[in-house]
Amino acid sequence: MEAPKTQDKLRENIELVQDLLSKQKLVESIVHGAQAPKQELVESLVHRQHLAELQTKLSRMHVGDIAHILEALPLDDRLTIWQQVKDRRGGDILLEVSDAVRESIIESLSQEELLSVLEQMDGDDLAFIADELPQQVLEQRLQSLTAEDQSWLRDSLKYEEDTVGDLMSNEMVVVHDTDTLAEAALKLRGLDELPIHNDKLFVVDRRGILKGVLSLQTILLNEPELSVAKVMATDVVKFAPDDDASEASKAFERYDLVSAPVVNTRGKLIGRLTVDVVMDYIRDETEEDVLNMAGLSGEEDLFAPVLDSVRNRGFWLIINLIAAFIVSRVIGLFEGTIAQLVSLAVLMPIVAAVGGNIGNQTAALIIRALTKGQISSQNTFHLVRKEVGVSILNGVMLGVVVALFAYLFYQNTALALVIGIAMLLTMIVAAIIGLSVPILLEKTGHDPALGSSIITTATTDSMGFLIFLGLATMFLI
Amino acid sequence: MEAPKTQDKLRENIELVQDLLSKQKLVESIVHGAQAPKQELVESLVHRQHLAELQTKLSRMHVGDIAHILEALPLDDRLTIWQQVKDRRGGDILLEVSDAVRESIIESLSQEELLSVLEQMDGDDLAFIADELPQQVLEQRLQSLTAEDQSWLRDSLKYEEDTVGDLMSNEMVVVHDTDTLAEAALKLRGLDELPIHNDKLFVVDRRGILKGVLSLQTILLNEPELSVAKVMATDVVKFAPDDDASEASKAFERYDLVSAPVVNTRGKLIGRLTVDVVMDYIRDETEEDVLNMAGLSGEEDLFAPVLDSVRNRGFWLIINLIAAFIVSRVIGLFEGTIAQLVSLAVLMPIVAAVGGNIGNQTAALIIRALTKGQISSQNTFHLVRKEVGVSILNGVMLGVVVALFAYLFYQNTALALVIGIAMLLTMIVAAIIGLSVPILLEKTGHDPALGSSIITTATTDSMGFLIFLGLATMFLI
Repeated sequence: MEAPKTQDKLRENIELVQDLLSKQKLVESIVHGAQAPKQELVESLVHRQHLAELQTKLSRMHVGDIAHILEALPLDDRLTIWQQVKDRRGGDILLEVSDAVRESIIESLSQEELLSVLEQMDGDDLAFIADELPQQVLEQRLQSLTAEDQSWLRDSLKYEEDTVGDLMSNEMVVVHDTDTLAEAALKLRGLDELPIHNDKLFVVDRRGILKGVLSLQTILLNEPELSVAKVMATDVVKFAPDDDASEASKAFERYDLVSAPVVNTRGKLIGRLTVDVVMDYIRDETEEDVLNMAGLSGEEDLFAPVLDSVRNRGFWLIINLIAAFIVSRVIGLFEGTIAQLVSLAVLMPIVAAVGGNIGNQTAALIIRALTKGQISSQNTFHLVRKEVGVSILNGVMLGVVVALFAYLFYQNTALALVIGIAMLLTMIVAAIIGLSVPILLEKTGHDPALGSSIITTATTDSMGFLIFLGLATMFLI
Repeated sequence: MEAPKTQDKLRENIELVQDLLSKQKLVESIVHGAQAPKQELVESLVHRQHLAELQTKLSRMHVGDIAHILEALPLDDRLTIWQQVKDRRGGDILLEVSDAVRESIIESLSQEELLSVLEQMDGDDLAFIADELPQQVLEQRLQSLTAEDQSWLRDSLKYEEDTVGDLMSNEMVVVHDTDTLAEAALKLRGLDELPIHNDKLFVVDRRGILKGVLSLQTILLNEPELSVAKVMATDVVKFAPDDDASEASKAFERYDLVSAPVVNTRGKLIGRLTVDVVMDYIRDETEEDVLNMAGLSGEEDLFAPVLDSVRNRGFWLIINLIAAFIVSRVIGLFEGTIAQLVSLAVLMPIVAAVGGNIGNQTAALIIRALTKGQISSQNTFHLVRKEVGVSILNGVMLGVVVALFAYLFYQNTALALVIGIAMLLTMIVAAIIGLSVPILLEKTGHDPALGSSIITTATTDSMGFLIFLGLATMFLI
């Protein structure tokens, strides 16, 4: 197995595949241009040769790397590669690719093709992508599962997105508290295939209630005739299927877990959560935050059809437009003032830009603290005091610089003073806005990251224009 | 061990501790107000009682949870809690807190106090925080380490930040390829304490060259008399100490690793990288991206002194101010036009706001693709075509809406047409800017996230004003 670890090597992989693909396309276009009947033979030979080379390269690659290449290819190239890999490793690859790319692949498949890929997956894998599959195909696939896997899958479909239940797996090794270590080891040996990240076995009693966990190390380090109950660990970090996935992922980080049991309200063991799934979740979650902050509704396939992209970006674009309309109307209030002193129109974006920057800096810090659960009713006051302090200090410094800039271009002392003071006031207001917007979003049950940048910017812009043009109307006209 | 898994419980923890702290402060202030000599006795009793309650609560908490509380407390409260926990678990807690909070604690300690906390750490832990310690204290602590640990620590200080060498540990279990599985198991049993995330042992030859890895499962599943060389896995994902930590963390995700060996150029085993460190790294890295995008230079303690915060935010604030000056000068070019048609000043922020939004949406997608190594020379053209397509479609739609808005307020058909067309053009330009800025930042060796938002916004603003006011000058004046 060739395992490229660096981004450069991954990029080389992508370029290699694209190279082979374009060679093949070139041959096709030359041959089709000539249109001689004999050429068809040549085409099919060359075509086959490049495909064979591609096939060889791909067969040596790790599933994770193929998924990575698929994500980096435009749709038609992506499907060509998919054709090469689907028969043997289609199932695994479909699990690895991002949601958006998975959707693009599933859409391209006929029911029969999709079904034959799904045949490569077990119940646990199916549960992972079940909500993205056409109902009919899923039902058909379900028929060929064992009754146990079927009921597991139907249960797991009930859990909401972003819960532990949605992420958990049913692959785990379970032993009884009355077993000996030797029996536990024997149980392990009897399995065809061991679950991934199997650092510990789960210990249950006769009724399936979780009693403790037994790490592989404990089995190795103790005498085989000891009973499981005697050596198992009983202070177990466990989860409920309704637990928030984001909180579970933080618990994995805090307690350095590799795997953890999931139990229902009666304490019965129902599944297992593992670090690989948690890591993927953390990556997805933080990437989503970044995309949300930039005004994208969700993950987007790099090569999504234009219409899909328009939809993904449309919502926040419209919100932003409405915000811009409001800001524009705020300025509209001062049309008379601007008509008398056009320099105001030239200078006003400075106040807004710096105010927006301060507001977004503060908001980013508060969002992070909220996500970590660090904001309590008692420390909010400390925060307000600190943020206002920071913005006063920054405001005085930048206010002086901006006043000098204004004076340099307009030699108007009153104007310079007005913009300097407006800067200071706007920065204080912006800090308070940056602090309040995410907290209010969270208090009203929203994700504090979602749209906070657009709301913060629009509010600081409006306030900045209001303060600057208001002061100008009072003192300069 | 009480293990709170949810954010709510963590918040409760923080509030509980703050409650106890404020009760204690209240008692102190009452007593100091009265100033009767007898009161001192009461004070010390009550004080002691609250501290004892605090002490009890803290002693039941996981180190990770105490670290979390310390991060959420203002500085003086933080140090009070630190006093309660430092003697027994100070070392572990110092490892768990964020860099910024660690700095605040270290600053508050005298050399002797710090040294006594460092005594609780082994060489591996020390290496983790060594670059944050005063040179003198570190040297003093080094004296009491074994020669082996000393040389390990000195070596590990040589690796740059964000490399595998900086994150790796020397805690690992090493066996020889000539050993039997029974001997390997015996070696495990002989250890006082097993390393964390010890899912596999590393197999080396006589000269210390890595030959393969031996998972605990393999030991458990095979006959003890088999030789290690026979059953070990030889296709190992391994790292070099100079490898980029970010790329290593992605390899951990792609290949679902729990631990991996680090070898030098001669193939000699020199350390081990584990999933807990990698998870922390991923979290820090993505959080840093979010903070960088918002114009913060780095991580900031929620309760950092005002001056530290001013410094952390100053750099991007100044860059942003310079950008705003440039934007202002672009508008200044059209002062004459605005003087003749003030409505332009009222409408121009709409063009800039929407352009900035489009630019930042595109930039966020490209940054993500760059970080994942998905942008190659061959797919850039596809991307440009797609992004321009998206912005044309969005531009036509929003252009019409904005033109209607302008007409609604000014009943000026020419003005409405100009702003509609300016919107469309600005959005196309903004998409190209959002695509180019991160790619150019990366090509010139910078982090594509760092400052891309400020550069993108400033450029789209300037272009938006230039297009709108330029068209207005040509067609309306």
